Order: sequence, then C-alpha cells, then structure tokens
Amino acid sequence: MSDGYGKRGGDAFPSRVSVEEKGLAVAAVQTHTNNSGGGSMNMFQPSDLNYESRIRISFDKQEVMKIIGAKLLKVMPGEVHIEFSFMESLTQQHGYIHAGIITSVVDSACGYAASTLMPAESEVLTIEYKVNFMSPAKGNRFKGIGRVLRSGRNITVCSGDVIAVDKGKEKIVATMLATMICVGK
Amino acid sequence: MSDGYGKRGGDAFPSRVSVEEKGLAVAAVQTHTNNSGGGSMNMFQPSDLNYESRIRISFDKQEVMKIIGAKLLKVMPGEVHIEFSFMESLTQQHGYIHAGIITSVVDSACGYAASTLMPAESEVLTIEYKVNFMSPAKGNRFKGIGRVLRSGRNITVCSGDVIAVDKGKEKIVATMLATMICVGK
Amino acid sequence: MSDGYGKRGGDAFPSRVSVEEKGLAVAAVQTHTNNSGGGSMNMFQPSDLNYESRIRISFDKQEVMKIIGAKLLKVMPGEVHIEFSFMESLTQQHGYIHAGIITSVVDSACGYAASTLMPAESEVLTIEYKVNFMSPAKGNRFKGIGRVLRSGRNITVCSGDVIAVDKGKEKIVATMLATMICVGK
Amino acid sequence: MSDGYGKRGGDAFPSRVSVEEKGLAVAAVQTHTNNSGGGSMNMFQPSDLNYESRIRISFDKQEVMKIIGAKLLKVMPGEVHIEFSFMESLTQQHGYIHAGIITSVVDSACGYAASTLMPAESEVLTIEYKVNFMSPAKGNRFKGIGRVLRSGRNITVCSGDVIAVDKGKEKIVATMLATMICVGK
Repeated sequence: MSDGYGKRGGDAFPSRVSVEEKGLAVAAVQTHTNNSGGGSMNMFQPSDLNYESRIRISFDKQEVMKIIGAKLLKVMPGEVHIEFSFMESLTQQHGYIHAGIITSVVDSACGYAASTLMPAESEVLTIEYKVNFMSPAKGNRFKGIGRVLRSGRNITVCSGDVIAVDKGKEKIVATMLATMICVGK
Repeated sequence: MSDGYGKRGGDAFPSRVSVEEKGLAVAAVQTHTNNSGGGSMNMFQPSDLNYESRIRISFDKQEVMKIIGAKLLKVMPGEVHIEFSFMESLTQQHGYIHAGIITSVVDSACGYAASTLMPAESEVLTIEYKVNFMSPAKGNRFKGIGRVLRSGRNITVCSGDVIAVDKGKEKIVATMLATMICVGK
Repeated sequence: MSDGYGKRGGDAFPSRVSVEEKGLAVAAVQTHTNNSGGGSMNMFQPSDLNYESRIRISFDKQEVMKIIGAKLLKVMPGEVHIEFSFMESLTQQHGYIHAGIITSVVDSACGYAASTLMPAESEVLTIEYKVNFMSPAKGNRFKGIGRVLRSGRNITVCSGDVIAVDKGKEKIVATMLATMICVGK
Repeated sequence: MSDGYGKRGGDAFPSRVSVEEKGLAVAAVQTHTNNSGGGSMNMFQPSDLNYESRIRISFDKQEVMKIIGAKLLKVMPGEVHIEFSFMESLTQQHGYIHAGIITSVVDSACGYAASTLMPAESEVLTIEYKVNFMSPAKGNRFKGIGRVLRSGRNITVCSGDVIAVDKGKEKIVATMLATMICVGK
C-alpha cells in the first residue's frame, strides 16, 4: 500500500514510509528497454476509470497548448500522445522548432501519462526533467509521446520522445527522462 | 588551443584532441558556488568583441520569443538575462506559467551565455539540459538568467535560473544545468 | 506547514497538499547564483539540533565510503563536505578517478546536506541526479561539496561540486543537480 | 559524412559543421521506446570490427571495476552488459548498494556501448548523465545495460538500466540518460 517515496493520502498515516517498506514497494515497473507498442495498455491498471476525461479537461486548460496548436491524441494507461504542426511562430534562430517548445509538449505528454495512473482527486506536477536533443526539430508535424516507467504512490518516473515527421519520414528529435509528483486537488 | 572535448575548427587538425591534452585544457572554470553578481564580467574573455550585437541579431530571429513577449536584457561575457511578463496564453492548467515556457527562456539565456564566449563565425546548439522546478511559476514578471560554468572549445556547461517577481518579491522557480555545443555557421 | 510536494508525516493529514498551498510554500530558497561561502549557515534553520551526530552515524554506516577512503568533514545546515584521496583502485582506463566514484561522493554530500534540514526521525533517499563532468578527475585530493538549493517538506533540491586538488591547485571536475526525498525511519 | 555536433577528424575541414548539414545528419537513431532485445545488433554498423577486443582491453584497465567485482558480459554494436554481485563493501547506510556504485556500472556500460560504434583510434568520455533511482538496489546480483540511442560523429546519446536480481526476480532499480563524446587517443 505504499511506494518507496512516501505514502499517498486519504488515511491517517504519516506520509513518510519506513525504509523497510521500501523493499516491497515497487508494484508496476515498466522499462523503456523492453517496451513494445501496445504493451503498455496491459501493464498498468488505472485506479480512476475516468482518467481520460479528467486529463482531457485538464489539457484544455493548458492555454499554452493553444498557441502551440497542440492536440491531445491518445490517452492510455501510462501513455499519452500529443501532436502539433510546424508554425514559424515557434522557431528558434535557425528556423527549427525551439527546444523549449519541444520540451513543453513532451513535458505535458509525460505529466498526463503519469496522471492516468493517479487517483481522481489529484493533480500532477513536474519536479524535474532532462531532455537530450538528438537532431534539429525540422519537419511539418511533431509528436510528443510520454510513457510511465515507474509508477509510485507519490513519485512517477516517465520517459518521453518527440518525433518529427519530415516529408513522410519519422525521426526522433528529443528524448526526455522526467520525475513527476502527485499532489492533492 | 584545445579543450577536453574536441578541437575547434579553422585548421587542418583532426577535431578529436588527445586524452593527454585534456589534463591541461580547462582554462576558465566558473562555478555556481562562489559566483557573485558582477564577478563574471572579469572572469571570461570573449574572443569575439562583437558578441553582443551578434547575439542580439540571433535573438531577434527566435520567433518564439515574440509569442512569449521575451526581451533580451543584459548580455555580458558568460552571462545573459532575458525577461518576460505573465500572459494567460503561457499558462498550464493551474494558471501558472507552463514549465516548457520557463524552460524556453532559460535555455535561450544559457545558450546565449555560452555564445558570448564563442568565435564570431559560430552557432550554439543545445545538446541537453535538466531543469528542476522549485516552486510554481507564479508572478507578474519572470527573469531567466544563464551563466557559463565551464567554457571549452566545443562544449560549454551552463547554469541557469528563472526568478519570478510576485508583488515585488523575488523567488527562484526553476534551475537549469545545461550542455551547449559550438557549431560552425 | 507544508511544501509544494506533499506534507511531511507525524500527523493525521493526507500527504498530498493542495495546489493552492503550493503558492505559499517555499520557505527557504537558497540559490547557487548568489551563494557565498559562509552564508549558508545563516540561511537554513535545522529542525533537528542533533543533525550533525545523526549524519555522522549514518555516514559511518556507508560501507562504500571506506573503500573510497572518504572522510566526512564539515556538516553545516544545508551544506556538507566529504573528502578523499587518489587511489589507483578508484580509477578508470586513463588513470583518473572513475565518474561513478566522483558521483558517489557528491551524492552522499548532497544527500546529507538535505538531511541536515530534515527531522530527527527521518531518512534521505536520492530520487535522481544529473552530473556534468567538466574536466578529468586528476589530482591527489578530491572534495565533494553538497548544498541545499531548496528545502521542502518532502522534496529537497541540492547542488553539488567536486573539486580536485592537483599540485596545490583547485579545479572543479564535476557539478551535480540532485533531487532528494525525506522518508520515515 | 558529418553529424550534428562537429565533424570527426582525419581531414582538412574545420571540425564545426554547418547548421545546414545538421538537417541531413542523424544516420542511426535507435529509440528506447521500441527497442527489442536482439534488435540492436542489426541497427548499428561498427566502423571498427575489432571493437570488442578494444573495449575488453579498456575495461580491464578500469581498476574500479575490480573493487566492484564487475564483469564485462555482452559487447554488441551499440549495447554492452556489465554484471556484479552484492558485496557489503558497496553499500550505503541502509545496506543496499550505493547509488554511486550503481551509477559507476551503468556509466561504464553506456560509455562502452557508445565506444562500440567509434573508430579504432578513439576514446570515449562521459560529458554528463542523469540517473533516476526507481527502487532500492536490493538483490544478490546486478546487471548494468548500456544502449546507444543516437550515434553521431562526436556526440553519442545512451540509455542505460540497472536490473537487480533478488531471489530470482528481476527489478529495474535505476535508469540513466547519458551524453558521451568521442576523443582521439
């Protein structure tokens, strides 16, 4: 009933779990090393069956997604896809999409991927992330994919990718490793 | 004439430096641990004396800075400040500035801080960054500050902060540790 | 009584704080940008006045510090120093100290720096860290310094440096940005 | 003939590539999102057919691997496995393997994975890494796996995992995202 990083609320116990409990704690570990396309749907059991509508409502409140022109596509347990198209208003000095915009989209994808597994009365916040930029964000369409690697009571670790579609060809332009936290509403 | 991470161009030598050279290589190390305000101006010697106008021209080409409403303030050797004001169009679901927008601004500040120390005929690209979000990006004004920690021939390590000004009070909302690379024009 | 990332235990409240509370939450922010040597002693108020002996006892249980030959030097509120000397048994293929050993020492320094501000009945765990290696770990002595940047109820953000002393000269060889969590004993 | 991050030596061109070339540059991208076990063997073509013996010789020079008791298992193009067993001398204060030791092993695995694709006359250095710790490093055996995500002329991005084997059960205890650089011998 607890993960390695503190106990989730709704009961009278202190939030800090004992170190002893930590050894038993990680229930659902999904790694990016043996992670096939559809597999993630089976590996995570959302506790809030209404997760999709909860997340779509939250996404619609992210005003910044409107100026990016981002659309929320797939919302699955532990995995979320967001897409946007090239616009000159999003570019850096070489005419490619700015690293921060790439990051915005994959951060939202990772955050909502984490949120699919969180309880109904909760919010997700980003503690931190790291992004590697692997090639220039050149293309006409961009897909941000967030996936849960490890889902805990409080802390969720996510992996994300941004894929550029350029003249029909897909290329990974960035990869993220992120830490999310579950907070009460 | 070389740093630890490859030799910068303009000559006929291979770009990879020897491991032996690495021991001698780091000329200007500036750390975020003993870094007072104006000190950075003395610690770095730009090789391109026109660095400021070069960077201001590049910043003006970053279209995304226009939708953020960001202004390039200070441009000093190894340190750059960028500012923007709260706009609802930049928010996430709780009404605070989206993490990705915070990241956009401090990434540009770090990239241009690195660029102040690069040669005239060069461009800076972000290899990767990590950002920790320390409190919600709540405020009416936000300042992104990028500083060079270690300036090498090819690789520059930067540290950045985003400070929110909320009812006259300053608070750090995010901190970045980034790796930049110098590429030819 | 709560930070942005969950409430610390010892009471009957749920661990997840409200998003509203987050705006009020960050009490002591210390940044690596304006951080002078002795200043940190004044900026943080430890809740456990016995923090030093608690940390020294814990350090002595870190068996790995013995094979590194690491000594715990300063233990101050929000700042910890650990030192070790060059040994051939700690090297990588070029004869410098292995990145992972550098990381071990600065991780312990950051973890214990976070721990100085945690309650008596608690343990610190590393959620994640990022390390940039700025020059080869060449020298006869190495100092790992961990400092708290932001101290919250559950989550603490730390910054660390490793300094090599080579023929009397100091050089920063690595810098860390880390996220620590407070768990119950 | 060039990647996004500078041109590799052996010719008379400057090491910095043009920004234009960057668009064409990334040859082999392998992502951690659709990465099946044996697949990596086909996806990367090593330029040095002697990569395995080159890497085994280098690994034997990493003195620190001896005190960890680490063995180099698989060495494949773009993927390297290193294993070690629990020893009390490697533990932190709770009796689990110290985060820095976990990091040492997966850093070496990632570095050598990058090195498999580098030319014969080269060395690999770690620019930086981030590690997320997902559960306590509890077990009797530990496997560090490093994989190349993106192989460029100078810069290689790797992903790594550490798997604990505890009473016959495997669990991921840590995941790494790392940036490596190719330097001349």
